[in-house]
Order: sequence, then structure tokens, then C-alpha cells
Amino acid sequence: MSTQQQNTLTERADQLDAADPLRACRDEFVPAGQGVDAVQAYLDGNSLGRPLRATRQRLLDLVDGAWGTRLIRSWDEQWMELPFRLGDELGRVCLGAAPGQVCFADSTTVLLYKLLRAATAAAPAGRDRIVVDTENFPTDRYVAEGVAAEAGFELVWITPDPAAAVTADQVAAVLDERTAVVLLSQVAYKSAQIADLPVITKLTHDAGALILWDLCHSAGVVPADLDANQVDLAVGCSYKFLNGGPGAPAFCYVATRHQPHLRQPIQGWMGHADPFRMGPGYQAGQGMRGFISGTPPVLAMAGVADTIELIDRVSLAAVREKSIALTEFVVAAVDAGQAGEGVRLVSPRDPAIRGGHVTIAHPDSRRLCAQLWTEGIIPDFREPDGIRLGLAPLSTSFAEVALALGRIAELTATAR
Amino acid sequence: MSTQQQNTLTERADQLDAADPLRACRDEFVPAGQGVDAVQAYLDGNSLGRPLRATRQRLLDLVDGAWGTRLIRSWDEQWMELPFRLGDELGRVCLGAAPGQVCFADSTTVLLYKLLRAATAAAPAGRDRIVVDTENFPTDRYVAEGVAAEAGFELVWITPDPAAAVTADQVAAVLDERTAVVLLSQVAYKSAQIADLPVITKLTHDAGALILWDLCHSAGVVPADLDANQVDLAVGCSYKFLNGGPGAPAFCYVATRHQPHLRQPIQGWMGHADPFRMGPGYQAGQGMRGFISGTPPVLAMAGVADTIELIDRVSLAAVREKSIALTEFVVAAVDAGQAGEGVRLVSPRDPAIRGGHVTIAHPDSRRLCAQLWTEGIIPDFREPDGIRLGLAPLSTSFAEVALALGRIAELTATAR
Repeated sequence: MSTQQQNTLTERADQLDAADPLRACRDEFVPAGQGVDAVQAYLDGNSLGRPLRATRQRLLDLVDGAWGTRLIRSWDEQWMELPFRLGDELGRVCLGAAPGQVCFADSTTVLLYKLLRAATAAAPAGRDRIVVDTENFPTDRYVAEGVAAEAGFELVWITPDPAAAVTADQVAAVLDERTAVVLLSQVAYKSAQIADLPVITKLTHDAGALILWDLCHSAGVVPADLDANQVDLAVGCSYKFLNGGPGAPAFCYVATRHQPHLRQPIQGWMGHADPFRMGPGYQAGQGMRGFISGTPPVLAMAGVADTIELIDRVSLAAVREKSIALTEFVVAAVDAGQAGEGVRLVSPRDPAIRGGHVTIAHPDSRRLCAQLWTEGIIPDFREPDGIRLGLAPLSTSFAEVALALGRIAELTATAR
Repeated sequence: MSTQQQNTLTERADQLDAADPLRACRDEFVPAGQGVDAVQAYLDGNSLGRPLRATRQRLLDLVDGAWGTRLIRSWDEQWMELPFRLGDELGRVCLGAAPGQVCFADSTTVLLYKLLRAATAAAPAGRDRIVVDTENFPTDRYVAEGVAAEAGFELVWITPDPAAAVTADQVAAVLDERTAVVLLSQVAYKSAQIADLPVITKLTHDAGALILWDLCHSAGVVPADLDANQVDLAVGCSYKFLNGGPGAPAFCYVATRHQPHLRQPIQGWMGHADPFRMGPGYQAGQGMRGFISGTPPVLAMAGVADTIELIDRVSLAAVREKSIALTEFVVAAVDAGQAGEGVRLVSPRDPAIRGGHVTIAHPDSRRLCAQLWTEGIIPDFREPDGIRLGLAPLSTSFAEVALALGRIAELTATAR
């Protein structure tokens, strides 16, 4: 690639950054290091989102105030309701879910387990199949295997194109009178392709089964419109686009119509109808309370609270719009050869079905990523030859993307 | 109570504080408020421990550094091993457990579920009973009910004296050839009585069953000596005497000899033998890795890391010694009538079998506690007439205890 091309890429990035309506959001994040240790381009916000300055302050306020001074009184004053209050906010701002259907708890893995167990237990007689796909995130597949084994259910595997997502046709082909639950990701973690949630949900319902959507790679960046699409169940994590921090808790959505007859198996005191009565015999709480088990992880909910507030201020539509602009910028650069020779696009070309990250590929990706990391340019290597560029609209600049693509181009040139 | 008695109580408290070898530890905690909002006496450290100043700093460092700057790289650099490294430290400093047997994960409720499920699944044919007691903490009872129902096991209930703990004789009376697991708390959450862990563990083994100890009310204040007592399984929480903060993760102990044949049911990517291979088919990780499920809660482990370091510096023996001195101070005051007329001791009189809190009772406890809270004196009301005084040896002064008992005495006097 010529210096002129590089300039063009950088210049276009600067123009886009200057015109970006969300550019001020970038200053709301804690700086990613200083001096030689500073991160030059963080392109892994789809794996671990950066902390907001507000979260730094919220944690301090928590330590000094609600935890350090109000102490045990904070449970009554705010924390007992926090998982549900924050869930309602996430539902309103990001998920298209009316209040009383979302809560934060546990990890994605544990919530997947709880909801799949609840769904299999409630399945009508004769419905003993769970539909999954080979390209879903490992934890979804592993949990499904475990639940199927213990519930005596059969797994029906769809094998999608690894560079795409499960299609409605593929789902239609496996649905039958034995299908109990379909478990899919809205955004494929490798390719970033967005599955056709409305159509697949409807197909699943038409076949008499429940749908469980994993929103890990879409929450906070791609709308889900859960209520409008009559989704049954969903889970997602909060440490990617929701900036909850490493190991922040997951969330789950259970449509109001299903709450009375779905029972999750981990009967803890916090899910009891009256936690502080501490009486004999578990009695599941009404609504979403029945879907939590142990003590809510308060500290770990700080970051997601701030990100929901920020998205609410700018709107999820604006976030999605910048997300598309960022990924389009990558696609255009790859097409123009500005990301280096031999680099090809893995993610879908159509922005309407592309999520918040872009995967590109090069035979030498492993070495490229290792080198980039030493330079403070942080994408994600994915087997066998992928470079996953996670573009977090609230914190990622076009300049960061241009820098990374420019270096990839230079490194692929020296690789030949 | 006369003013003279009050002086005596306060004077004795001042003398004990002056002679307390752990008195400097109190300054290591974040102050519990200032001015009129300041907490005067925090006596609920057995429910939610106070934050250390070091934790305030550790959270800032985390936000700025490992999370905010090292970002995704921190998983490789430290976080993937954190649940096991911190578990080993807890094992060494507080539990008497050799490395490789303790990890942090989930909540107490979820870990109880995982271990009970693992233990019931591994039980020899014909062993289909779980022994529990009616005075155990609700989550233990609820989880046991749930697991028994789904595994087709029978619960065998012991009904201990609410003012005591399960006795070895009571356990011996229900053990038989059908017993698979015995689930008990080392320290009773109401009475504070310490169960005879060595003898009950041995009895359980002699009957061919496994023991699962809940250490929620003992971890960080009462030694457990898990290895020396050949305990099989244990769980505990980190937000009480370990000051992990609200909803901090729990820990579990699985004796090395049991790890190869115990399988927990929530098959997540982090428990896989090779998490980042992301391959098909769950394969449980070796050792304690197989007992975690989802992404480790990093932020929420900050507080417990600092407390383990502090206990390591002063020794668990010194913590236990001060714990006994604090509870003895309460017992002596109650005996001398300095805690008010009509106040009686519920917890055991013998310090050798008394844990880190003392429960006293008065017919008017509910009103007393409500009034104390308005004055910044924070004990815990427990149905029907209990006042639970949680005395955290690292952060609680004798002066705080004297203040609380003095006010209880005054309030009981005006109650008549």
C-alpha cells in the first residue's frame, strides 16, 4: 500500500470522527493508559468494553457510601431491587422490553442453564428436542449438551456457514412436533452476522416451540425488539458493549406470559417470594424474582448502569448508526486494498445484517495480531485465520480503526 | 442500669481497645461516614463486612489499569487464573486447605447447587438421602429441596435446638446406608454455635457418605482445617467476614481426592479443559477449573483479595482470639445486667463453640433495633425476638460494642 493510500484512510477517518455525533462520548471513558503504555487502538470492545469515568466515580461512591457507610441498610434502601430496576432500564433502553421481564444475575452460562432447564421442564409431553447450531458460542453449546443429557432431551444441530449466521430456512428445516426450544445467538460471535430474529422467532412459534435468544454480542449495539417480536426468552452479558467490566453479571429476559409457568432449578433465598422471612420450604418469587438465586452482585453492576444511562442519552438508534458507519469504514478499506493484500472480509457485506464487529481474515493473522498487540493495537485473533475488529460505537474512533488497518497493511506487505 | 455501670462498660471497652493487638487494623477500613451520618457502631459485619481502604484503591487501580488499559490482555495476564489463585490463598490463610482445592465463582446458592448435584450424581446406588437441618440458612435448605426433587433423592431433616447447632448425636441418629450427603453449616447463622466439624465429618465418613460444609458464617473468623479434618466439600461466601462487598462471589472447596469423579452440571466455557479452543463438545477442566462455569467476576473479587492479605499479615489465630474477646465482652455485659433488664443470651456461653457473632434476645427487640438504626447503631434484628451482634474482629472496636449495649440497656429501661 502506498503512503497516499494510508493518508487517504487516515484523512477519511479524521473527517468521519469530526462529523461523528457521538464523538463526545469518547471523552467519557477512562483513558486507556498513558505514554508508551497507552493503547493506540482498542478494537476488542465486543469482548471487554472499556470503563466509563462515571463508573470509576460510581465505584468510589459505592465504596464510601452505599457499601462503606449505609452498609447493611443499603439492601433495604436499594440493592434488593437493583437487579430488577437495572433490568427494566436495560429492557427499555436496549432490548425493547416492557418492565418486569428483565433482571441481572449470575453469568450468561448460569442463566442459560436456568432458562433452558426451565424451558425443557415446561415442554409439553413429546417435545424433547433442543435446536442448537455448531457455530454458536461454546458456552451455549456446552450448556445445551449438559441440559439435554440431564433432561433426557435430544440436541438437533444446525450447521451454518461459519462466515454467516443460522438462516430461517435452516431453522425451518429442523423444526418439528418434537421441538421444545430453539437456542440461537442474535449476532454470530465469529462472523458478526445478525440472524433474522423476527422471522426465526415466528417460525419457532408456528412449530409450537419456544425461542431462547443469546444477545451477548448484540446487547447495547444492535436492537432486539424482544416484545415486538414476541420473543420468549433471552440472555446476554454486560461486559461487552455494555461496559460492565470483567465478569460483570449477565441478564435474562422472560416474557411476562411465560413467567407463571417457568421454574428455574436453582432455588436460592433471593428468588424466594419473601427472602427475609427465611421460612421453611422454597416458594418461587413472583415475576423475575423467581429467576434469581443468590445475592445480587452489586459492585459488578456499576458499569452497566452507567452505560445504560449513556445509551439512553444518545439513543440506541444513534449507537447502531455509528456502529454501521464504523464497520462500513472497515469494509470499504478492505475493498480498496487499504487493509493490505490478501486480507479478505469474512463478515457480511450488507450492513443491515452485520453486527458490531467485523471479522477479516489473512493467512498470517496469528502473527499479525501478536505483533499488533506489542504496538498497543488490540484486535482479537480468532482461529484459524481471523482478525476480529470489535468496534464499540461509544468509545471507538475512526482514527483507531484507520491506524489498525494501516498497520495490518504494512505488516502484510512485509510478510510477503 | 446506673450511670456507674455504663462507665464501667465503657471503661472496660477502652482498656480492651488499648490492649487489642489488632487495633491498628481498624484504621485500614474506609470510615463509615462522617458527621451526623456517621455510623456509631457497626455490628453487622457478619452480614456485610466493611470495605478496606486497600480495596477502594484496588478498584481504582483495576479501573485505570488492568481493566482500563490492559483491557482484554488482562485475561491472559492474570484474570484467567484469578479464581484459583485467590482460592489457594483463601485455602492457605483461612481454610487449612492445600493448593488446588478452592476456587471463587458464582454465588453460594449456585455453588451449593453445583456441589450437591455433583455429589448426588456420584453417589453409589442405593444412597439416595441428603441430610439437612431445619435451622440451616434458607438458601441451603431451598437448594437441597430442589436438588432432592430433581435427583429423586429424599431429604432427611434434623431439627436442632434453635439456640444451638446440630449435634454429633443428632447426625449419628439419622446416618444410614442410604445417606449420600450431609449438608450443614459450620457456624449456625442464628445462634452462632459452632458445629463439631471434626467429629461430624468423621461420623459421616464412617457411614459411607460425603460431607458438605457451609462456611458462610465462619470463613475469615473461625478456622475450618478442611484438609486436616478430611472434609469432602465446602462452600462459603466472601461478603461477610471477608469484606468482599455486596454480592461478592462465593468460593468452593473440593478435596483433591474427589475432583476426578465429581462433575457439576453447569457446563460453561470457563470450566472447559481448554476454554479458548472453543471446540465442539464440553470436556470438563482438570482440578478446580471443572467447577467453574461462566466468566469469573473480577471486580467483585477485589475486596476479598485485600482481606485475605490482611488476615495473612495478622494470622487467623489472632483474628479468632479477638473474636472470642469481643463476644466474651458481650456475654459478660449481659450477665452483669449491663445490656439491660430482660435481655438474655441466646448464643452459647462457652467461647470454644461460639462463632463470630452473638445473638441476644429481648421481647421488644424489633422496636429496639429500629430505634438503634436511627441512631447509627447497626445490629441485625432476627425473628422473633433476636438482636444479632456481628463482631468483625478486624474492624469492630470494643467501644462500639459498649455503645450499642449501653443504648440497648437505656432503651429497655424506657420500654418498661
